[in-house]
Amino acid sequence: METNYKKIFLDKIVKKKLVIGVIGLGYVGLPLAILLSKKGFKTYGFDTDKNKIKSIYSKKSYIERIKNSDINFLLKNGSFFFDFKHISLCDVIIICVPTPLYKGKPDLSYIRKTIISISKYLRFGQAIILESTSYPGTTEEEIVSKLKQKFTIGKNFFVGFSSERINPGENENKLKTIPKVVSGLSQNCLSIIYKFYDTFFNKVVRAKSIKIAEFSKLLENIYRAVNIGFINEMKFIADKMNTDIYEIIKIANTKPYGFVRFNPGPGVGGHCIPIDPNYLYWKAKKLGISANFIKLSAETNIKVINFIKLKILRTLKTLNIDKTKAKILILGLSYKKNIDDLRESASLKLIKLLKDNNINKIEFSDPHIKKNIQTRDYNIKLKNTKLTTKNLLSFDIVVIMTDHDKFDYKKIYKHSKHVIDCRGRFKTDHKVSRG
Amino acid sequence: METNYKKIFLDKIVKKKLVIGVIGLGYVGLPLAILLSKKGFKTYGFDTDKNKIKSIYSKKSYIERIKNSDINFLLKNGSFFFDFKHISLCDVIIICVPTPLYKGKPDLSYIRKTIISISKYLRFGQAIILESTSYPGTTEEEIVSKLKQKFTIGKNFFVGFSSERINPGENENKLKTIPKVVSGLSQNCLSIIYKFYDTFFNKVVRAKSIKIAEFSKLLENIYRAVNIGFINEMKFIADKMNTDIYEIIKIANTKPYGFVRFNPGPGVGGHCIPIDPNYLYWKAKKLGISANFIKLSAETNIKVINFIKLKILRTLKTLNIDKTKAKILILGLSYKKNIDDLRESASLKLIKLLKDNNINKIEFSDPHIKKNIQTRDYNIKLKNTKLTTKNLLSFDIVVIMTDHDKFDYKKIYKHSKHVIDCRGRFKTDHKVSRG
Repeated sequence: METNYKKIFLDKIVKKKLVIGVIGLGYVGLPLAILLSKKGFKTYGFDTDKNKIKSIYSKKSYIERIKNSDINFLLKNGSFFFDFKHISLCDVIIICVPTPLYKGKPDLSYIRKTIISISKYLRFGQAIILESTSYPGTTEEEIVSKLKQKFTIGKNFFVGFSSERINPGENENKLKTIPKVVSGLSQNCLSIIYKFYDTFFNKVVRAKSIKIAEFSKLLENIYRAVNIGFINEMKFIADKMNTDIYEIIKIANTKPYGFVRFNPGPGVGGHCIPIDPNYLYWKAKKLGISANFIKLSAETNIKVINFIKLKILRTLKTLNIDKTKAKILILGLSYKKNIDDLRESASLKLIKLLKDNNINKIEFSDPHIKKNIQTRDYNIKLKNTKLTTKNLLSFDIVVIMTDHDKFDYKKIYKHSKHVIDCRGRFKTDHKVSRG
Repeated sequence: METNYKKIFLDKIVKKKLVIGVIGLGYVGLPLAILLSKKGFKTYGFDTDKNKIKSIYSKKSYIERIKNSDINFLLKNGSFFFDFKHISLCDVIIICVPTPLYKGKPDLSYIRKTIISISKYLRFGQAIILESTSYPGTTEEEIVSKLKQKFTIGKNFFVGFSSERINPGENENKLKTIPKVVSGLSQNCLSIIYKFYDTFFNKVVRAKSIKIAEFSKLLENIYRAVNIGFINEMKFIADKMNTDIYEIIKIANTKPYGFVRFNPGPGVGGHCIPIDPNYLYWKAKKLGISANFIKLSAETNIKVINFIKLKILRTLKTLNIDKTKAKILILGLSYKKNIDDLRESASLKLIKLLKDNNINKIEFSDPHIKKNIQTRDYNIKLKNTKLTTKNLLSFDIVVIMTDHDKFDYKKIYKHSKHVIDCRGRFKTDHKVSRG
């Protein structure tokens, strides 16, 4: 009799005998591994970054919002590796590797390398689920196509896609409360993957196809990218009309239907908004369609940095200060408030732009940034200034880029000579202008 | 002693002695006049369209959702005129005239003609409130600037702007439940206008300036225009990827934060979405800023008509039907469901485009359209077909343009040869495709 791999898989879930492998222990994989592990399933973690594996074994979290106690818990139920030998022990393999851009185009190298690295450890009865965000078609093109010669997918192997909906700083520790979208290549794939996530999440939503699930994740992010781009453009217009965009938004927001508030800001950061939309843009272009809203949003959101630069230059001129001597303090480096995440940070872009403009006396203050500023793109040596009265007074302009709740805004207002507020924290007046 | 016009005005409100004049008795003015009148205030209505005045005096409503009984009520407490003599009797004058486009640019002629016509009847102690949607600055440029030689605004005359938030087919009869935005040229203007609307509306919101109030109304509408344009573009992309945009939206919509559902459609109609954004576009352009999101939304929303045309042509080709002989039935003519409003209707644009493409055998069915189709732009002689089994069967393609609830969808599905569904009413299958 033929082995019923679906039944075996489902039985293992019920008996909590299922072994889980999570590949990629970053912003997505680490909180996911913790959730799975807490339910009592053996959870293996894989990451080619040895520092992450070391950090886990020394019970130290490398993500600000993930507690050391959770890392400790992970170790009780699982093991962590920087090679892929133990993939063969896993019944389900969840891929949460980065999908960045390279020269503005999707860079699927992490997914591809992962598939190559694990392929010799794959066996009948396993399921692979992609959680990395990518364009519609990725799971089929990059995973299914590579495995279908070795396996009969839907019978002795299972493949699907499930989107991650992590909102950094907000829901890492309550993942299970966010409805989880799942999809599978075949009906069997779908039902296995559904049952799997249903064990951990309060609500699981079945998409009709993998492509629909992949597209839905991008739609969620592009909706935000477009609306942030749009409101930033409205900021430019309001500014030109000498009105305050925040006052306009406040009034529009009293409409009880048909309006949703988005706030303008200094640009977009993180992964979801600056990166993901480009994946759909690229794929659509290959099909002969120009995704104009995506393009325009990206262009507009990047324009804001220049808008802020001009505000700074204009303010210096008004204050009669030579820009080469001007002292500028940047408040907030991370891309959004209350987190330490520097990915695609607008503050870093602004610092670079100011330096290109011969404004070199720049310091920053960010209570969430503990170590040196070093990302894939930036290596900036700047001082993390303490917000004392004396320090504040020593700057010509203080620019609020990220409005961390930990900042003492009363103090900032009182002791700053001039504030350029890109987050609408203050009302505008003689010493506060919008950025 | 100087006359205290503010006090007189406020006293009249308390004593219900205030006389109200509403200029423009269309989609905005008529329901507003009814609301004011129902509170027991003497309400005069003005409109240069004699047919409207006649219709009111014959107790007949000319707007589908406004009941004859409400028109009857209007007559108890007020009088209606097509000239402006009686403006001198009014303490408050609310202007609700059209602000259309002329060759793509704001056409303020209705506001200008109104101001010219009423100016000789203006007197100390009156208040003028603009409710017509227009670009930021309109109230000051078109009203304040014309009156400030004759009056000291804020002392012996009052001017302000209050946005209308009517959602045709939804809230004409519950206007007072929608927060009402008010603004005034000076503090006195604002407090008078606030008190006035506060008598009729549950919640009144004060904007800091007239410009902010004017801008906020446009922001509300542009937000919708942009999101409809965006989701229509996503429809084009999903279609090219052979996926169903409605399935994608359904899945994305399970995200409990950060996503708001907009539905693609056959284009946009009415006043708010196709017209209003152009007002800001035009004003921004004058200030040297290109409002790219507005432009892109308009372009994309108009592209949909062509997308539907191509769908029809492709379907005819697949069905092997000569387009000059093809019989097409358009379901729904009004710009949105359950109303009779033909302003900027996408269906009318489609009919014109099909005729330009030598598809002439077109009929329509719309339970809300009673009379001949005649708008500012179209004069189309078409039959309003009854949706019988026999009739449905006689068409090669049935196109769902406006999904009125009155349609019998089961019947439509059962008896149509092929349906192009632009509203997501049906799932796609062998006889239903997306438009």
